[in-house]
Amino acid sequence: METYTVKRLVINYKTLEEFKQFKEYGIQELSMLEDLQDNIIENDSESPFYGIYFGDKLVARMSLYRIEAAYDRYFSPPQDYFELWKLEVLPQYQGKGYGKTLVQFAQSFNLPIKTNGRQQSSGFWEKMGFEAVTYNEERDRGENPYVSYPKGVSEQTL
Amino acid sequence: METYTVKRLVINYKTLEEFKQFKEYGIQELSMLEDLQDNIIENDSESPFYGIYFGDKLVARMSLYRIEAAYDRYFSPPQDYFELWKLEVLPQYQGKGYGKTLVQFAQSFNLPIKTNGRQQSSGFWEKMGFEAVTYNEERDRGENPYVSYPKGVSEQTL
Repeated sequence: METYTVKRLVINYKTLEEFKQFKEYGIQELSMLEDLQDNIIENDSESPFYGIYFGDKLVARMSLYRIEAAYDRYFSPPQDYFELWKLEVLPQYQGKGYGKTLVQFAQSFNLPIKTNGRQQSSGFWEKMGFEAVTYNEERDRGENPYVSYPKGVSEQTL
Repeated sequence: METYTVKRLVINYKTLEEFKQFKEYGIQELSMLEDLQDNIIENDSESPFYGIYFGDKLVARMSLYRIEAAYDRYFSPPQDYFELWKLEVLPQYQGKGYGKTLVQFAQSFNLPIKTNGRQQSSGFWEKMGFEAVTYNEERDRGENPYVSYPKGVSEQTL
C-alpha cells in the first residue's frame, strides 16, 4: 500500500475553499472563515485539522482536539486525551487507506482518543482498535462514543 | 395539514425492534436493549424518546434530554434546557410534517432547546425558529449547534 503524508492544515482561503468539498462542513468552518475575514486570526494560522493531499488537492481530513485531564470522563486513570471528529475522505478517494492513515496518525501520539462513531462506522473503528464505551445518557447524550485505549489505560467507571 | 399525536415512547422489545428501522440506531439503543434483557429496567419503562405512530408503526422519533441550569453554557440567563437529538423520520414518511410536529412538541415546554444540526439541515432548523450559535471550539467540538430561544432568553457570552 502507498504511504500518505499527513499534514497539519493551515487556515487560509484556499484551505477553507477546499473544506466546502466535505459533507461535514458546518459552523466550525464558517467560524474560521469569519475569523480570517475579520483579521481575528492571521492567514496561514494553525487549525485543529489534519489532512492528506493527493497532488495539491485535499482529499481527506480530520479534526483533533486535545482535552485536558481535568475534563476526562472516559479514561482511567484520567488524563489528557484527543477528541477526533470530522474524519472524512472524499467519495472518489475512499477505500484506499486515507482514513486509516489519519487515525493511525492520531494514535501515534499515544494518548487515548474518543470519537463519535457515525452510522454504520463501527466496523471501521473496531478494525482500528477502538471499542464502544458503556453508554451513559448524561455524558453521551445520544452519541456513539468509540475510544482507543493506549497500553495501561482502561474505561473510566462513572 | 393532518395533525399527529406525539407519544412518549416506552422501552419494550417492540419499541426497540422498531428503533432498528432508524439510521441513527446506535449505542444508546443497544444499551436500552441490554438493560431490558438484564432486568436493570422494567418492560415499558419510560424512555427519553418521543415518537409519532402511523397506525401502529413508529414513523418518526426524537430524543429529548433535560440539562440542568448549572450545566448551561448556551443560554442567558443560564437555565434548564433541552438537548434534542436523533430527530428522524423514516424515508417514506418524510415531507409530511412529522419532523416539524416533533420539534413543535419540544418547543411547547417553553424551555430553550439545543440540537446538533446535521449536514444540510440548517434550512429546516431556521424554519423552526432555531439559530446557529457563535462557534466555540472548546464547547462545541465540531458540532453544529442550533438553538431555540424562548422569549426573554438570549445567547450566553462565553
